[in-house]
Amino acid sequence: MQALMNMRLIEAEDGRVVFGGIPEEKHYNPGGTVHGAFSAAMLDSAMGCAVLSALPVGIEQTTVEFKLNLVRPMSAGMGEVRAEGWLVHRGRTLATAEGRLFEQAGKLFAHGNTTVMIFGAKPAA
Amino acid sequence: MQALMNMRLIEAEDGRVVFGGIPEEKHYNPGGTVHGAFSAAMLDSAMGCAVLSALPVGIEQTTVEFKLNLVRPMSAGMGEVRAEGWLVHRGRTLATAEGRLFEQAGKLFAHGNTTVMIFGAKPAA
Amino acid sequence: MQALMNMRLIEAEDGRVVFGGIPEEKHYNPGGTVHGAFSAAMLDSAMGCAVLSALPVGIEQTTVEFKLNLVRPMSAGMGEVRAEGWLVHRGRTLATAEGRLFEQAGKLFAHGNTTVMIFGAKPAA
Amino acid sequence: MQALMNMRLIEAEDGRVVFGGIPEEKHYNPGGTVHGAFSAAMLDSAMGCAVLSALPVGIEQTTVEFKLNLVRPMSAGMGEVRAEGWLVHRGRTLATAEGRLFEQAGKLFAHGNTTVMIFGAKPAA
Repeated sequence: MQALMNMRLIEAEDGRVVFGGIPEEKHYNPGGTVHGAFSAAMLDSAMGCAVLSALPVGIEQTTVEFKLNLVRPMSAGMGEVRAEGWLVHRGRTLATAEGRLFEQAGKLFAHGNTTVMIFGAKPAA
Repeated sequence: MQALMNMRLIEAEDGRVVFGGIPEEKHYNPGGTVHGAFSAAMLDSAMGCAVLSALPVGIEQTTVEFKLNLVRPMSAGMGEVRAEGWLVHRGRTLATAEGRLFEQAGKLFAHGNTTVMIFGAKPAA
Repeated sequence: MQALMNMRLIEAEDGRVVFGGIPEEKHYNPGGTVHGAFSAAMLDSAMGCAVLSALPVGIEQTTVEFKLNLVRPMSAGMGEVRAEGWLVHRGRTLATAEGRLFEQAGKLFAHGNTTVMIFGAKPAA
Repeated sequence: MQALMNMRLIEAEDGRVVFGGIPEEKHYNPGGTVHGAFSAAMLDSAMGCAVLSALPVGIEQTTVEFKLNLVRPMSAGMGEVRAEGWLVHRGRTLATAEGRLFEQAGKLFAHGNTTVMIFGAKPAA
């Protein structure tokens, strides 16, 4: 999915990740603006990887649910936008994260939050 | 976006719409299952069009926010899945809708709801 | 909390629960209508109990997250309103449910959905 | 509702509000922990007032929807907890806000976000 959204990883540190993505006309909805799924691809990726970045190697996460607010329309030609995700709470089996999608000048286009499930601890050999 | 998700409109009636879509490997996330944005594309489309189908010609809607629960992983090779959206409440400037995404045998993969803004009434000439 | 909201259990069957509650002036927000927390009390209770009603005795659930849409204002003097919750998906450790809050004539005031965590299986003796 | 939740306004500035509230046994759910509606009362109030604090006098707001994650259980005897809300985006007819509920030592118990509708501009006399 990342390739379809022209996405690339820009930054990753412990509990915080930034992805870049370039909206194009192929991402439009019939109404002529970028489909909400573009924001979903970027924010779900950024929020999920933000959690992953705070977990030990070998532990995985999967999205349980996410909620997005789309606060401004996006269109092709605006260049690369950025989705930043950060860990909010890490429990034993669930974690939560938030994220924002903005253009390089800082204008906000979407924001959201998510619950993910943590799994996959491999037993010691 | 609809083309990227192999989507087609299957049914549309007053306040209810069904889209079909075919998950492929290009829709995967790095974890090897279909990205949540695939479900977002299908459910946001189905829920938004469900509202639109209940509005007079010339009135538009745009997504304010949506929330999705992803209850089972999806993978390529499962064939066409269906997203059904239906209107829940229609107010003067806002409307709400719900939706479910399931495979043809009826197994549920995702569900969600949305708030959309209604706009665009053209003044009489 | 149920007593503060004048709540009573009206119906409960496998995967579906209905609570009644009576909004009063003590539930108002400073703006002079019933606070969103009244709807939250009723819908979180109805959705959580709907999941619980589908679980074996001794298994518990706790709310992970819930989302509510408040589609009309409520006020004191409207009598008992009803919150219906129903199970949507039951997994091994998580379940989801939806709910609606309406007055007796059927007018909708709020609706929502939730993710809950299932726990508490007692090991066999 | 604020009185039922032992709530008081602690801080308010342009776009940011903090409420305090004291959980008691009367706020419990049947499972023996504080009901999610207590968090809903505090966070919906804090997030809505955060928006209101950024609006001109005479302009009102009402909650369209809110979503809460409950990340730890609360119980009576933990003393006053604090809900902080802040404005995220202010549009012409809609605004969004986020909030967190934590105890005085900083431990997080719940967080959420909201969409509110802005209305009530009085025409000049």
